[in-house]
Amino acid sequence: MPHNYRLIVSCPDRVGIVSRVSGFIAAQGGSIIEANQHSDLDNGRFFMRYDIQSEALGAAAFRAEFESIAREFAMDWRLSDASRRQRVVLMVSRESHCLVDLLYRWSAGELDCDIPCVISNHDDLRALVEWHGITFHRVSVDPADKAPAFAEVERLIAAADADSVVLARYMQILPPALCERYAGRIINIHHSFLPSFAGAKPYHQAFERGVKLIGATCHYVTQELDAGPIIEQDIQRVSHCHTPQDLVRLGRDVEKAVLARGLRWHLQDRVLIHGNKTVVFS
Amino acid sequence: MPHNYRLIVSCPDRVGIVSRVSGFIAAQGGSIIEANQHSDLDNGRFFMRYDIQSEALGAAAFRAEFESIAREFAMDWRLSDASRRQRVVLMVSRESHCLVDLLYRWSAGELDCDIPCVISNHDDLRALVEWHGITFHRVSVDPADKAPAFAEVERLIAAADADSVVLARYMQILPPALCERYAGRIINIHHSFLPSFAGAKPYHQAFERGVKLIGATCHYVTQELDAGPIIEQDIQRVSHCHTPQDLVRLGRDVEKAVLARGLRWHLQDRVLIHGNKTVVFS
Amino acid sequence: MPHNYRLIVSCPDRVGIVSRVSGFIAAQGGSIIEANQHSDLDNGRFFMRYDIQSEALGAAAFRAEFESIAREFAMDWRLSDASRRQRVVLMVSRESHCLVDLLYRWSAGELDCDIPCVISNHDDLRALVEWHGITFHRVSVDPADKAPAFAEVERLIAAADADSVVLARYMQILPPALCERYAGRIINIHHSFLPSFAGAKPYHQAFERGVKLIGATCHYVTQELDAGPIIEQDIQRVSHCHTPQDLVRLGRDVEKAVLARGLRWHLQDRVLIHGNKTVVFS
Amino acid sequence: MPHNYRLIVSCPDRVGIVSRVSGFIAAQGGSIIEANQHSDLDNGRFFMRYDIQSEALGAAAFRAEFESIAREFAMDWRLSDASRRQRVVLMVSRESHCLVDLLYRWSAGELDCDIPCVISNHDDLRALVEWHGITFHRVSVDPADKAPAFAEVERLIAAADADSVVLARYMQILPPALCERYAGRIINIHHSFLPSFAGAKPYHQAFERGVKLIGATCHYVTQELDAGPIIEQDIQRVSHCHTPQDLVRLGRDVEKAVLARGLRWHLQDRVLIHGNKTVVFS
Repeated sequence: MPHNYRLIVSCPDRVGIVSRVSGFIAAQGGSIIEANQHSDLDNGRFFMRYDIQSEALGAAAFRAEFESIAREFAMDWRLSDASRRQRVVLMVSRESHCLVDLLYRWSAGELDCDIPCVISNHDDLRALVEWHGITFHRVSVDPADKAPAFAEVERLIAAADADSVVLARYMQILPPALCERYAGRIINIHHSFLPSFAGAKPYHQAFERGVKLIGATCHYVTQELDAGPIIEQDIQRVSHCHTPQDLVRLGRDVEKAVLARGLRWHLQDRVLIHGNKTVVFS
Repeated sequence: MPHNYRLIVSCPDRVGIVSRVSGFIAAQGGSIIEANQHSDLDNGRFFMRYDIQSEALGAAAFRAEFESIAREFAMDWRLSDASRRQRVVLMVSRESHCLVDLLYRWSAGELDCDIPCVISNHDDLRALVEWHGITFHRVSVDPADKAPAFAEVERLIAAADADSVVLARYMQILPPALCERYAGRIINIHHSFLPSFAGAKPYHQAFERGVKLIGATCHYVTQELDAGPIIEQDIQRVSHCHTPQDLVRLGRDVEKAVLARGLRWHLQDRVLIHGNKTVVFS
Repeated sequence: MPHNYRLIVSCPDRVGIVSRVSGFIAAQGGSIIEANQHSDLDNGRFFMRYDIQSEALGAAAFRAEFESIAREFAMDWRLSDASRRQRVVLMVSRESHCLVDLLYRWSAGELDCDIPCVISNHDDLRALVEWHGITFHRVSVDPADKAPAFAEVERLIAAADADSVVLARYMQILPPALCERYAGRIINIHHSFLPSFAGAKPYHQAFERGVKLIGATCHYVTQELDAGPIIEQDIQRVSHCHTPQDLVRLGRDVEKAVLARGLRWHLQDRVLIHGNKTVVFS
Repeated sequence: MPHNYRLIVSCPDRVGIVSRVSGFIAAQGGSIIEANQHSDLDNGRFFMRYDIQSEALGAAAFRAEFESIAREFAMDWRLSDASRRQRVVLMVSRESHCLVDLLYRWSAGELDCDIPCVISNHDDLRALVEWHGITFHRVSVDPADKAPAFAEVERLIAAADADSVVLARYMQILPPALCERYAGRIINIHHSFLPSFAGAKPYHQAFERGVKLIGATCHYVTQELDAGPIIEQDIQRVSHCHTPQDLVRLGRDVEKAVLARGLRWHLQDRVLIHGNKTVVFS
C-alpha cells in the first residue's frame, strides 16, 4: 500500500534545489503527486511543498537520508506523514457559528484531523460538542486573576497531545508564554479585515466608520494582539441599510468560511510562515 | 415632453412624510419612476430620493410650493433637474488608468456629465485628454510653496463653473479651504481598503503586512486625509506570489471600477451624506 | 405594543399609487419602517413592499378598509403579520450540509419561522433533526411506484399546516399536482448556476465542460424541472486542480449560502413573483 | 545578461519527470524562477511550466539537447523565449470597450506583445486605433457572401505574421478553416457565463430567464460556436432593477476584465490546452 508524505522546505534560493530534491525522491521510487514552489525574489528565499507518494519509502529512512541535502542547502524542512491526522483542540466562548461549522466539516471529512476536546470559558456549547462525541472542558476565566485558568488550559492542551489549537471565537487573549510555546500552531479568527479594526468590537468600529465591506481574517496567534501572520481573509458587501447587528450576522458567514479555509490549509501543511507573513500553497 | 427631476430629502423621521411628499407629487401630476427611502433607526433620521417624471411640473414652481412641506418636516432637501448635466473637473497626476477609464465611460454615455477641463501637475496625460476634445491645464506644484498652484487650481475650477471635482489619482493633498468650499463635491479614489493603509504607498504597506486582499476606496474629500465619507469600496484577492508591483497593477483595476461606480452614483444624486457616512441608493 | 405588518402589492403602474397607499397608512397612524418599490418599465407593472409599524392598526381592519384602494388600482396584494412566524417543512435526502446550515440559522434566530417537521426519504439525518427537538418523518420512495410516497408527503405537509416547503437537497422530483398546490411556496436549491447544467450531476457536467466557476441557484419549484423563478444565485471560483469531488465539496458552501439567503428573503416577504421572474427587495 | 525561457510540457504522468527536467536545467546552469505543475489523476496526464533564467543557455542548444528527454517521456513540449514578444492581431466590430481596455493595458506594459494591426468590419474605431500608432484595416463583410472578406482577413493575419488573434467583440463567426489553422491561438470573449446563453444576444437571454448574475467567458475559438476550451470566466451581480441595457453596460466591465486576464495568461504561456479544457497556471 502506498504511503503519502508531505515535504515542506524553506531555504535560501539558489540553482539546483529542485533538481536535488526531485532527484532524491525519484531515486527512492517516490512519485510527486502535487508540487508547489515559490521563489521570493525580494529576499532570496525559496519555499516548496511536495506531496509524495511511495510504495517503498519509509519516513524514518527518508529523514535520515535527506538530512545531508538539507544541510547542504541550509534548509528549514519537515516531512509529515499525510496519513497521520493532526490533533486539534478547539477553544470557544459562547458564540456557536464557527464551532457548528467546523464540527460539520470535520464530520463530513473536510477537515483531516482529530478533535480530542473543546475548551470553553462558558458552558453554553457543551451539549452541541458532546452530541458529536467530543469531550468538553469548561475552564472559567476569573477577570481578576486569569493565570489559574490559563494554567489549566495549557494543561488540557498538553494532556490532549495537541498539534494545533483553534480559537474559534474564544474572545480571550492568551498569555504570551502559551503563544510562544505553540508558535505557528494557534489559529485565530478575527472578525474584521485586518489591519482595520483590530481589537474589540470590530463590527461596531466598521459601522461607525461607514465602510461598504466587512471582513474576517484567519491568522496565527502571536504575542502582539491581532498582528500575527495572516493565512486567509475575505469580505462581505454591506450598506447603509445594515445595523451593527446585521453586520454581526453577515460577518458570521465570512468568519466561518475564512476560518475553515485557513484551518484546512494548515492541516494539509499548505501554510509556510516566513517572518510575519505566510506562503499559502492553496 | 416630460421632464425628469430628482428630489433628495433628509429629515427627522416621523409619521406621514412619504404620504405628504408623494401626495404633493401626485397632485402636480408627477409620476414617481424610482423611489428609494431609508430610515436610520439609530438616530431617527429619514432619507429619500425620488425620481420624478412630469409633463407639466416646472422646477421653479415645484421648489416654491414644496417649501412649506420642507419647513414643516425640517427637511434638508434639493430638487435637481435630471436633464441638466453636472460639470465635473478631473484632476490627475501621471498615472492614466483612472483617467482612461473615466474618459471611456464618459464617451460611452455611462457618466452623465460634462467635463469642462482636466487639471494636472504634470504634462504626461495632455495628449490623451486633448484627443478627447477636452481642455487640459497643467498647474505645476512647487513642493516648497504650494499655495500659488492651489490658488490657480481653485481659479480654474471656479472658471469651469464646476459642480464637482474628481481626484482621479491626483496624488496631492488639497488645501483645507478648497476642501471646505467644495464639501461633498470632491471625490477621491484611495488605493487601499480604508481605514487600512491610509496615507502614502498603501500597496507597499499591504505587501509588508501580508494581507490576502487589496482594495480601493472612493470617498468624499474632507480636511482630514483619507477620512471622509466612504461612497464605495471593493477588493481584489492577492497572494504571496505577488510583488508590490503586482499589487499596484492589480489594484489599478479595483481603483478604476470603484471610482467609476462612486462617481456615477454621485452624478445621479444617489449619494446622501450624513455626518461622516453616506446613504447610497444604488 | 406596536404591531408590524408587511404590505405586498403588485399592480399596473400609474400615477398616484404611492400617494394613495402611504396616505392610507398615515391616516391610520401607521409608520413606514422600510419601503421598497420597483417600476418595471418594460411591462408597466409596479411592485411595492412596505414594512409598517402601528400602535393602533389591526390587520382585519386594515384589510377591510384597504380593499377599495386595491380594487381601484387592480392590485394583487397581501398584508402579512410580521409577528406570525411561517411554518416551514424541510425536505432532505442524505446530504446534510444544507440542513445543518438551516438548523443552525434557525436556532440562531436568523430564520424567522417554525419548523414543524423534516421529511426525508432516508433515515440518515434523523438523529441530527431530533437533537434539535424537531419531528422527523421518513417516507421511503419506491422508484417503481412513487405515488404512495408523495401522497404521504403531501399528507404530512398538510398536517403540519405548512406555509412553505424547502427542498434542502431532497433529490427527488415532486409530482406536478404538489408543485401546483404550493406554487410560489416550494423553494429548491439547485447545485449549478442555472440555466447551465440543469438536471442530474451538475458538478460532473461542470467538470466535463471545464468551467472556471461553479454556482448554485435557489428558485421556486414549478412543474418544469429546474426552470422556476430564480430567487438567488452565487458562484465559487474553481480551476483545473479541482476534481469533481472537489467541486462537490466547494459547491456545498455556495449551496448553503444561496439557499439560506433565498429562504430568509422569502420568509420576510421580500420575494415577489411575476411570471417566471422575481423581484427581490433584499 | 541572463536570458529567460519558458518550458511548457505535457506528457503521460510517471515517476521521474521533474527530476529529469530539473536536473537537465541545473546541469545547464539554468535557474528555475517559477515552476508550475499539475498531475491530472483522472487521465494520467502531467503538465508543467518552468520559467527559466540562464546566463549561458541558448534556446537552440536547449532544444537540441532536450529532445532526447522529450522523446523518452513522450512529451508535447515547447520552449519559448520570454524576451520575444508575441504578435497579436486584434479584431473588433463597433463596440469599443474591450479595445480601449486592451490598448490601455498594452500601452501600460501589462500585455507583453506587439500589435501589428487591428482588423474591423466597420470604420468606427479607426481613429482610436490610429491614435495609438497602430495600423487599422477595415474589411467589410458582405452578409450574402462572406468568403472574400475572410480571405482578406486571413491574408492580413498572415501578412502581420501573427502569433495570436484576439476577437475583442468581433461579432462575426470565423470560417472553420481559419479556426483550424490558428487552433489554440484565437481567443474570443463571449458575453455570457458559458455554457449558459451561447449564441446571439446573451444579455437579453439572461434578462428573459431572470438570472441574478451575468457573466463573461474568454475561450479559444474552435469550429463549434462558443464551445471551445474556456480560459477564464467571471460574473457580476444583477437584480430585477436592471434592464437589458443595464446588463449590457454592466457586462462590459466583466468582458473587459475576463478578456484581459485570459490574454495576459495566454501571452505568458500559462494556458495549456488539453482536449476541450485548459490548465491555467495563473
